[in-house]
Amino acid sequence: MELFYSENINGGFLRLGEEESRHCIKVLRHRDGDEISVIDGKGSLFRCRIVSCSARETEAEILGVTERWGAHSYRLEMAVCPTKNIDRYEWFVEKACEIGVDSIVPVIGEHSERKDLRTDRLRKILLSATKQSLKAEIPRVGDTMAVREYIRSLADQEDRLKLIACCFEDGSRPRISITEALRERPCGCHGISVLIGPEGDFSREEAALAIGSGFIPVHLGPSRLRTETAALAAVFAVYSMSGLK
Amino acid sequence: MELFYSENINGGFLRLGEEESRHCIKVLRHRDGDEISVIDGKGSLFRCRIVSCSARETEAEILGVTERWGAHSYRLEMAVCPTKNIDRYEWFVEKACEIGVDSIVPVIGEHSERKDLRTDRLRKILLSATKQSLKAEIPRVGDTMAVREYIRSLADQEDRLKLIACCFEDGSRPRISITEALRERPCGCHGISVLIGPEGDFSREEAALAIGSGFIPVHLGPSRLRTETAALAAVFAVYSMSGLK
Repeated sequence: MELFYSENINGGFLRLGEEESRHCIKVLRHRDGDEISVIDGKGSLFRCRIVSCSARETEAEILGVTERWGAHSYRLEMAVCPTKNIDRYEWFVEKACEIGVDSIVPVIGEHSERKDLRTDRLRKILLSATKQSLKAEIPRVGDTMAVREYIRSLADQEDRLKLIACCFEDGSRPRISITEALRERPCGCHGISVLIGPEGDFSREEAALAIGSGFIPVHLGPSRLRTETAALAAVFAVYSMSGLK
Repeated sequence: MELFYSENINGGFLRLGEEESRHCIKVLRHRDGDEISVIDGKGSLFRCRIVSCSARETEAEILGVTERWGAHSYRLEMAVCPTKNIDRYEWFVEKACEIGVDSIVPVIGEHSERKDLRTDRLRKILLSATKQSLKAEIPRVGDTMAVREYIRSLADQEDRLKLIACCFEDGSRPRISITEALRERPCGCHGISVLIGPEGDFSREEAALAIGSGFIPVHLGPSRLRTETAALAAVFAVYSMSGLK
């Protein structure tokens, strides 16, 4: 199933931008009258018929809409420190989208070697992963921020399950497994945030700040996982607790 | 922690081959009398002291040994069809090793586009992933074989949990989630085999043959996963059912 993406949806019609039109008309050779499937990136799938097309712009009439198409049953935000090797981060972003994630926030920890990240590349990867895995909502990419800043930004979100995966024990609260933390999640809880540290792990101060702000310290089992594998392990854990019942 | 690998262990001494010696002596500049950690790839970690070294060969005296070092609590074989893009398969192999897998068998399905695979590259990736994730046993890579052949090769293994992940329902037996299949695993069961199909999925005949031979048909949840993501989802499921209690 071939999916196109449009940001330009108005009344009963939508337009494909230049890149999507080129693919639709030049590569796939669609013509006036052809039916195509278009996502709006916000969760809706539109069945449409092309009414006018060029390699520059394609206009299509909307025949039907399906909301929350390919949606998952949870709201998950992954706040993950960028890896030294950026391919590994991009790989995580693609896989997380396939499995099911709602937003990805690149966070910079005190021990992070990489302090910046090109989020425009991540958005491209997320668009194609969203289409490939037959979903209609594209995960959001948050602005890069410091780990401490991210922790503070969630301080007043009492009804959110906040988890921090660290490799050491903080004296104040012993770590539990992520599956245990998810199993014990209170039912009123809206959304899950998981904080994953850099290669050098979080600093003691970052972990203490998180735990003091209501984050539950979790571990991801006995294996020693790279940053991107740990992040994906968390996405799989949430997915399997919700979608694999 | 820096790990070296040796296949040449005799009595109280071991030798590093040329590649490992070069890394140990030229790159890390170890010298006679230095203590190093060496894995045998079969599950044991050796603490040793270098007694003679050159860039060609390094000999070390064994001071102590730890068996089943970094071992996981299950025996998992993943029989996975090669992906069109080989990087994706190599990525799976690296990640599966980090999380915990015992053997990987490249299997060729009727719908497989790729009919061959360079297993020597996989072995290199597995050696470095084993070291990186602090394990002493290197997962084995089986010879490439047809899916039907693989199914037949397990026909008499009654005490093994055999799972086939397919995207369609075979009339004979409805699919259950992989976590359900793992939860209901009989306790006497030695080892788990998971069969993952190619981009074009298994043929009806392959699925029927597997189910007829005692494979349980499983699904991996609602998301549409690529071959390598589906394979990793299965590794994570086994890992979290065993290691994340």
